[in-house]
Amino acid sequence: MGKSEFLELISPQEGLLLILGTLEKIKQGSKLLLTEKCLGLIVAEDVIASHSLPSFSRSTVDGFAVLSMDTFGSSTALPAFFDVIGEVTMGSSNQTKLNSGQAVMIHTGGMVPENADAIVMHEDTQKINDNEIEVFKAVSPGENILNIGEDVKAGDMIIPAGRRIRSVEIGGLMALGIMSIPVVPKPKVAIISSGDEIIPPSQIAELGLVRDVNSDLLAALISQWGGKPEKYGIVPDNLEELLFISRKAFIECDMVVFTAGSSVSIRDITAEAIRSLGGPGVIVHGINIRPGKPTILAICSGKPVVGLPGNPVSAYVTANIFVKHIIDKLIGVKYSFFEEKIIAKLDTNITSKAGREDWVPIKLLKSDDGFTATPIFSRSNYIFSLISADGLVRIDEHKTGLQVGELVNIIPIY
Amino acid sequence: MGKSEFLELISPQEGLLLILGTLEKIKQGSKLLLTEKCLGLIVAEDVIASHSLPSFSRSTVDGFAVLSMDTFGSSTALPAFFDVIGEVTMGSSNQTKLNSGQAVMIHTGGMVPENADAIVMHEDTQKINDNEIEVFKAVSPGENILNIGEDVKAGDMIIPAGRRIRSVEIGGLMALGIMSIPVVPKPKVAIISSGDEIIPPSQIAELGLVRDVNSDLLAALISQWGGKPEKYGIVPDNLEELLFISRKAFIECDMVVFTAGSSVSIRDITAEAIRSLGGPGVIVHGINIRPGKPTILAICSGKPVVGLPGNPVSAYVTANIFVKHIIDKLIGVKYSFFEEKIIAKLDTNITSKAGREDWVPIKLLKSDDGFTATPIFSRSNYIFSLISADGLVRIDEHKTGLQVGELVNIIPIY
Repeated sequence: MGKSEFLELISPQEGLLLILGTLEKIKQGSKLLLTEKCLGLIVAEDVIASHSLPSFSRSTVDGFAVLSMDTFGSSTALPAFFDVIGEVTMGSSNQTKLNSGQAVMIHTGGMVPENADAIVMHEDTQKINDNEIEVFKAVSPGENILNIGEDVKAGDMIIPAGRRIRSVEIGGLMALGIMSIPVVPKPKVAIISSGDEIIPPSQIAELGLVRDVNSDLLAALISQWGGKPEKYGIVPDNLEELLFISRKAFIECDMVVFTAGSSVSIRDITAEAIRSLGGPGVIVHGINIRPGKPTILAICSGKPVVGLPGNPVSAYVTANIFVKHIIDKLIGVKYSFFEEKIIAKLDTNITSKAGREDWVPIKLLKSDDGFTATPIFSRSNYIFSLISADGLVRIDEHKTGLQVGELVNIIPIY
Repeated sequence: MGKSEFLELISPQEGLLLILGTLEKIKQGSKLLLTEKCLGLIVAEDVIASHSLPSFSRSTVDGFAVLSMDTFGSSTALPAFFDVIGEVTMGSSNQTKLNSGQAVMIHTGGMVPENADAIVMHEDTQKINDNEIEVFKAVSPGENILNIGEDVKAGDMIIPAGRRIRSVEIGGLMALGIMSIPVVPKPKVAIISSGDEIIPPSQIAELGLVRDVNSDLLAALISQWGGKPEKYGIVPDNLEELLFISRKAFIECDMVVFTAGSSVSIRDITAEAIRSLGGPGVIVHGINIRPGKPTILAICSGKPVVGLPGNPVSAYVTANIFVKHIIDKLIGVKYSFFEEKIIAKLDTNITSKAGREDWVPIKLLKSDDGFTATPIFSRSNYIFSLISADGLVRIDEHKTGLQVGELVNIIPIY
């Protein structure tokens, strides 16, 4: 009765490259949103600076605007004298023109008077009377002045298409008065659970039944990754029903993620449902990874379709490897967050079968010289092995394990 | 005219310890929310498992449930014979009781029949006819079975108060049918901008005026850190108006963040406004850091009040050091995300004044053996120096700089 369900297992990296290589960026156009609502979204078009920043010359210190040549040679022993002819009021433009020997009081951020070319710092001056100061230190031309366009020049491309909007981009857009920008709409990602033993989490689990963990686990991950999760509920082990829901989800969404129950039969009808959604269809069936072997990767009529294993840990690991990067590609992320890793020292040996990539949940403990990593050995059925974990370690298929004392890269669980 | 605005500068770490030491966790009680809406929020009370998981014994493979002793000694040469007396239907409880020599077909995840104590894998069997199989391999008691409570036991504390809800916690709560949980309400954080030269970003900036960058920059950061930002607009350089808005914000919110215009006068009245909000008042005035020296840290009538510098880069850096950790304390985060760092090789020397902590924006470039870090030398006035940056490097006050080729820790900008 031995059966070869997986004709050919390929590595996670090969699988990812195959599906990403076949996939196009989503063709959804763009959507104009208020800049303040854009945190975490992807810019759809290059954003250009409409004007320069600063838009006028500004003082970087509190002091006096002067003609720098008037200060040349001045020192504590031989101060230069200036007539104070006014003060730059914050927030107003100053059209004062200085003559030699004149100074204007100015504050940090104030607009530098027309022909002043340097600011003497307050602490390098002494008041003689209300209209006169002594200056003890020479300033060179341009000293303590921010020039027009030093931060940004009109016409500069300030945010490229495909960049994810962080807090600092919002700040920069506000500085230029750009109150709305075109962003990439979030791709709708359908989530379909299946299996006769699976019930909605809100229902009472009679003996033999288990609550659906994956729909909400995946919905949370998909929203963290920039997608819009759409839950299509739980389909029993019935091809007709699965075909109906699959097609509905496929038509309504930009991507479909199945999380199949654990029986062979439900996995078989999931593969059949995927094949019915159009060509080229299934690209990868079976990945050389533990947990996560029965993963299916497909492109159907231009849309990505993924079949994830039913065990929550398997679903978590394979969603992180495949679903995350497919969403990145759909939304056209060029500038991606760096893959965060925590380097930690392993405190227990982990054995692993060579020729297969293994992922193991890790508990981290902060120590004086960094982090200590303790593997959590558990079955992929156990969602609580992830809850007690801080991250996962990946063991390359060429390795037979990791040793105590080894420094390893931990991928954090968010 | 030299003035000592900052009587005593203390290090960022000392400043943070001082304010956190004086601050209590927010007394706001908790709020019941649907579990599926809790991503990123903090659990207010320990969550206890109401029942065990799995709640019944489950098969981990496709095969046949048997009494293990019936298989002892079996091999390819000497198979054991079994009568197949039925099949476990997925999702239904199975009350079949096996006698010696009997087997029941079962699928992965199926409920193990009452007295079966092991599952023989499909591939270790051969069908003789519809009612009989041969078994080629012995199984030991418990083999291929998940036992009741192996994942979680009834009464286990599954999520401690103070833990941030990740996708995996949502999954675990769903597995137990816990559809709502008590979470810590997001603290309201007031943001007050000030300065006669500051205008709302949507207004036209006449000469001498600059748009408010910090209100929206801080609002984005505060929401990323788990607070609820409340913008109170821009206050001109006028003590009476500032007092009015400060008190309103102070009464309505759990924390107040000022971002003062750059003139001395507005900084002075900000300090005065903070002093008017109650004792003990200003705890730290002036931090030994660049950028960010004029930071004010205060506790007024039990609430934290922070005065940030007006320059966007200074505001960004000091908000990351102080505002972030104050919010953590307010919401009682015990389990914090690990401080993410990227290790990179510096490609340019950075000089730094010993005795002062310096923060420098960094551009990262991925190379074959990791990341290369290029410092962006810019003034703290330039928001666009942050936009072109991927992170920041911190230079300890005891160092006089960082050298080309040195491996440095980069704190990513999100």
